[in-house]
This record gives sequence, C-alpha cells and structure tokens, in this order.
Amino acid sequence: MSGPLDGITVLALEQAIAAPLCTRHLADLGARVIKVEQPGTGDSTRHYDRTVRGLAAHFVWLNHGKQSAALDLTAPADHDLLHDLLERADVIVSNLAPGALDRLGLGVDDLAQRYPRLIIVDISGYGRGGPLDHKRAYDLLIQAEAGSCTITGLPGQPAKPGIPIADIGTALYAYSAILAALYERERTGRGAVIPIAMLDVVAEMMGFALNQVIHGGVEPEPVGMGSPMVAPYGAYPTADGLTVVLGTTSDREWRRLATDLLHRPDLAADPRYAHNADRVRERTALDEIVGVWCAQRTLAEIQQAADAAGIGNARLNGVQGLVEHPQLAARGRWRDIDTPVGPVPALLPPGLAQGWTVAAGRVPALGADTDAIRTEFASTAPNAADIGVRP
Amino acid sequence: MSGPLDGITVLALEQAIAAPLCTRHLADLGARVIKVEQPGTGDSTRHYDRTVRGLAAHFVWLNHGKQSAALDLTAPADHDLLHDLLERADVIVSNLAPGALDRLGLGVDDLAQRYPRLIIVDISGYGRGGPLDHKRAYDLLIQAEAGSCTITGLPGQPAKPGIPIADIGTALYAYSAILAALYERERTGRGAVIPIAMLDVVAEMMGFALNQVIHGGVEPEPVGMGSPMVAPYGAYPTADGLTVVLGTTSDREWRRLATDLLHRPDLAADPRYAHNADRVRERTALDEIVGVWCAQRTLAEIQQAADAAGIGNARLNGVQGLVEHPQLAARGRWRDIDTPVGPVPALLPPGLAQGWTVAAGRVPALGADTDAIRTEFASTAPNAADIGVRP
Repeated sequence: MSGPLDGITVLALEQAIAAPLCTRHLADLGARVIKVEQPGTGDSTRHYDRTVRGLAAHFVWLNHGKQSAALDLTAPADHDLLHDLLERADVIVSNLAPGALDRLGLGVDDLAQRYPRLIIVDISGYGRGGPLDHKRAYDLLIQAEAGSCTITGLPGQPAKPGIPIADIGTALYAYSAILAALYERERTGRGAVIPIAMLDVVAEMMGFALNQVIHGGVEPEPVGMGSPMVAPYGAYPTADGLTVVLGTTSDREWRRLATDLLHRPDLAADPRYAHNADRVRERTALDEIVGVWCAQRTLAEIQQAADAAGIGNARLNGVQGLVEHPQLAARGRWRDIDTPVGPVPALLPPGLAQGWTVAAGRVPALGADTDAIRTEFASTAPNAADIGVRP
Repeated sequence: MSGPLDGITVLALEQAIAAPLCTRHLADLGARVIKVEQPGTGDSTRHYDRTVRGLAAHFVWLNHGKQSAALDLTAPADHDLLHDLLERADVIVSNLAPGALDRLGLGVDDLAQRYPRLIIVDISGYGRGGPLDHKRAYDLLIQAEAGSCTITGLPGQPAKPGIPIADIGTALYAYSAILAALYERERTGRGAVIPIAMLDVVAEMMGFALNQVIHGGVEPEPVGMGSPMVAPYGAYPTADGLTVVLGTTSDREWRRLATDLLHRPDLAADPRYAHNADRVRERTALDEIVGVWCAQRTLAEIQQAADAAGIGNARLNGVQGLVEHPQLAARGRWRDIDTPVGPVPALLPPGLAQGWTVAAGRVPALGADTDAIRTEFASTAPNAADIGVRP
C-alpha cells in the first residue's frame, strides 16, 4: 500500500454521509481512519437497509478501509482513550449533531489549544452563529434551504437531486480543506480548525444561479432534462425504446446540429433561432423538432450521426446501465473490497494520480477494532478518572 | 493575503465549469492562477449571457482571483511562453476537448518527463481508453450516462439536477487531488499526473444506488422531493402559501413526529408504520396525513413545533430565498469581489480554516494580464521558433 497519506491517522466521530465520505477518501489515499462509534448501535447508516447481503448500501459505500472502535465517550475510560488517540492523531473529523462535541467536552477551541498540530474539522448544517445554527440538517433540508430543489424538476414540481449533493459536497470540501491544512502543516508545524457548513457548500454550488437572480432578477425555472442556459438540449425517446440526450451549447454547434444532423439547413439559416437567447425562447418548438427526428431513429444511429456531426450526445441510463457501463468496465474501474459478509464490488475512487496505490479497503463490523485500538493506544488503566493530566 | 497556497503558481488551460472551479478554489487559498485563454474568444462561459452588468453569471462565479493571459498556443512564440510558464509553475490543470492537449504538443507524459516537479491534472469526460473516450462530455451528458437523472425527478419524468454535479464534483476531486499531490511533493520532491474522468466522479457519487442495484436488483424510482430511503419525508404546502420540508430518518423520529408533532399517538402505535420499510411502503398514505396537517398551519408554526419535537425541518427556498438567507447574512458569508464592471457580491468559499485569509479576488477581462505575464515570464524574444531547447 502506498498512498500520499501513508502515516496519517484520522479520528472520525462521524455518522451518515458527509464525514464518512470525507474520511473514506482519506483512507483511500493511505490514511489510517479510526471510526469511533456508539457501542451497540454505531453509525445510523448501518441500519438503513440490509441490501448488501445484510449490510446497508450506504454504509458499505462510505466506510471501506476504516477501523471501527466502539467507544462510549460519556464513560471516563473511553473518554481517556479518545485523548490517547488524539495525542497521536493528525486529523479529527466530526459531523455529530449541533452541540454534541461540546457536550462531550471536545469543544474545538479546547482541542486546538491542547493539540496544536491537530487538524480539526467541524461539520455542521448551518455553521456556528446565526438564527438557524441549532437546527438539524439533512441533505434534503439543506438542499431545500439553499434553492437546489427549486431549480431541479419541472415548473411547479421541484425535486431533490437523487445524488445527495449537500452531503457529498460537504464531504469533498472537508476532504480538500484537510489536505490543504496537511500541506500547510508540513511547513508551519501548526494544525488548523476548519468549520464547514453544509448550507455554505450548497450555496457555493448555486453560484451561477445566485448571480442570475442578484443581477437578472428572474428566478430560474427548472426544465426537467434540459438546460436553463442553452437550447435545444434535452432527452428524446428513440425508435428502439431508449432515450438519447443531446443538444447544443453554442451558435456554431446549433448550425452543425441543424445542418449535419437534422439535415435542415433552413433551420440553421432561420433568424428566429440564430442566437442562443433566441433558441432558449423557442425551446418548446425546437425540442419538438429534435424529438420527432430522434423518434424515427435508433439510439445507435443517432449517436453515430451526432458524433460525426460533432454534437455532444449520451444515453440516458438507469442505475443498472451504470453498473454495466462499458466505459467503467473497459478502464478497470471495478475491484473487490472486503466486508464482514465477504468481498463485494466497489469502484475505485476518482482522482488518483498515476502511481498512487489505493488502499484495498475493508468494511468494518461495529467495534471490530476496539480491543486492538485499546491495546495499541491506551496509556492508562481502564477506569482512570483523571482525564485532565496527560503526559 | 495569507493562504496555505501562497507561492503556488497554477496554469489553467480551462473552459466551462470543472477546471475553472477547481482553479478558483486554488486561488481562494492563495495560489496564483494564470488562466490561458484563446485570444479573441476566451473561455466560452464568458459568452453564456450578459447578466452581471454585461458579464456572464457563470464566468463571474468561477473566475475571480485569476489572471488572464490570451495566448495562441498554436503560434510558436506563445507556445514558447507557455513552456516558460511551465518552468516556473507548480500545477497545470486542463479540461480542453479530448485530444486537444496532444494536438498542442502538451501530452501529459511528455510534460511529466520534462517537468518532474509539475502536478499535471487532465480532466476528461470519460477518461483515457475505453469505447467512449473520444466523446464530448458536458454536465448533462455525463449525468445521463451515470444514472443521476433517472434517480431525480418523478417516476417516468427524469430530471437533471439543477446544480451541475458532474462539473462541480469533478472540480472538487481535481482540487483535492492537487492538494494531496502538493502535500506528497513536499516530502518526495516529485510532481504527479492526475487523470480525472467526469464519469468516474458521478459514478462515485452514485455509490449507494450502485450497491442497491447490484445487490438488491431493483432500480430505484425518483420520488420528487422525498427520499427513496425513508418515509414520510417531503415538501408540504403550508397555510401561508409557503412550503415546508420535513420528515423522519428513524423509527424513533417517526414516533416523535406522530406523537409530539401531529398529536397522533395512534399512528405511533400503529404496527403498519412501525419500521422504516413499512413507512416507505405506505409513503403515499403518510404523505397525505402530514400534508393535511401542514396545510392547516403557517410555516413558522410548523417549524417551531417541529424544532420542539426534535424533527428536522426546512423552508423550501427559491434562489431569491438563498440570496436573502438570514443564515448567510448573519454569519458574514457575503463580500464584494472586483470585476471589470465594478464590485459585485460573492460568497466566501466553504471550508476555510480559522486564520486563512481568502484572496480578495478579481474577475479578469480577457487577456487583462497577457502583457504583464509576457514581460515577467518570457525567456526568449517573441517569434523564437525553437521550442525544443530550453535552458
């Protein structure tokens, strides 16, 4: 195993998606991730379903390559052990409920003072301060607050993106902030305190829409499979019962689409459709024209013709289509990971540099590593009550 | 200005969203980003619209804090200058069309050999190799191929998430991979070659759905504003014409919702709704019950009662709601950035450590820095034809 984070130890006081994905990516790059879980129950994602031969689909996705230590942080002995772990950890990541860290005596400012080389990541829904900082935050709630759902779906029918963007985006901002802090620590020797709010993450992702509304004053309408910015662009049923997605992103592409794909030079020359703003206004008419053309051809015929005309195109896949995607198979993106119920397939993570070996991964049973970690890290006998004085 | 990337120089051969957001975040942390653009046209996003006092909404969002050098990389003098820049750069990021780097004589393997400390990021739609690696890739096309759209929307009505997840996710994986490579370079002195495929990024984000289909065999259906995993959960109109989003994520929360919020202990005790799997099956009936209750109360009443009952809740905002969001305002998330048309508001980036000063930012006019960069970096007189021999 050789990754850029070999030798880095991460403590994860985590649940659900945002922190677990962040620390999984740290593990992917070679970090040792110790997931601290509540004895008996553990991360709530363990219990979402029993899809993966008895394990939960989300949990398997997010937790391979980690160790699990079942610790009761309200009990003095385990609280002690956590501080033993903190003495030797490089990073702590938490996304517990608002106030939970403070109630455990693990306030970020105290941690920063006590462990000056530690990188402390405090993930929350709404950040510290402000009228909403006490509120529970789940992916859907944050996406709703941040306007992501009202620009998704159809007019009058907002929809939550199926991919949990708020959680995943937060994971990735936490992950990158940790990497930046590790880079800085190499040169300064200092750790960092990194607060990350899910609301801020989705707000960042809405940057284009914010500019449109702040300066344009018009609330964007969702357009289903289309793009609010360009037209024609969308999903069109094909003669063989599949769905093709295609469209244009520029006036030049539009002229190619009209001339070389639809064989309609009259459309290319039509001043009603000359510029993108014109075509956005005439979206419905243009979708109709493209739709009729696609309905008369098979997906393969359409994709071949669109490729030849230099028009971007894709197949609308369900999840099974992604499982079977030829591009993932041909490029060796699948490998097996270990779980308590045997090996299961998982994708390699994106963004690996050539030469980085990705950690093989293992999905830990709840508390699988508690004893080993206790033996390795504990500096005091169990039940030592004095947690204030550490060597 | 003090950020962890002070002193790092980034060359961006970029367009659209994925690479520009990646390099903007590098600039946010203090890196010097030199955006290399085609003379005359520049990044196509410059021309999407004229919403921000004549500038494009996307371009302003993605490009503050960068310099712009308008270089014709097919002309020997500018090609020379690019190599002068590469001699002193730490990172190069590109998301040009498939094959474009090779055609410019900038193949990643050659670059890696010539500049061993350079971190080279090669963003593509489908990766190198495989049957689709030649295909154009835009956000919608990749999301369609990766199944993201069919788990969004309503049954039979797939929708593209309004937030361009494929582009943004790719930006964030590129960004984090660069940071990991910078960290590794501190210790090894070696650069890195980092290929990133948008398809792999969205496939990673679909990890839960992949597990569901691989092991469960059932294609997930989109459920609008709900969650396919838990119920009841969704968006419900309120008596004052707004929309509240709320629901439960566990059996315990369900009992609280039924008892403390709806005042329906009979529901909490009803064995038909005891477990999450039961409630998912009875989603429609439960949505009806919650919907009737919400329709009789104002948003404020509902949110206050839900907070008191410990039930997560949110307001369904449009984009204007995000612009005016009290939580962003109260926490000072807005600041002004400079543009060629004067200062405009922009959000601070997520994930800043305490003590990191974010770069003030400036949106560059096309080629605004060409002359200064030529003067600073050029090692040879313009029109020097020999690009093979560098000191």
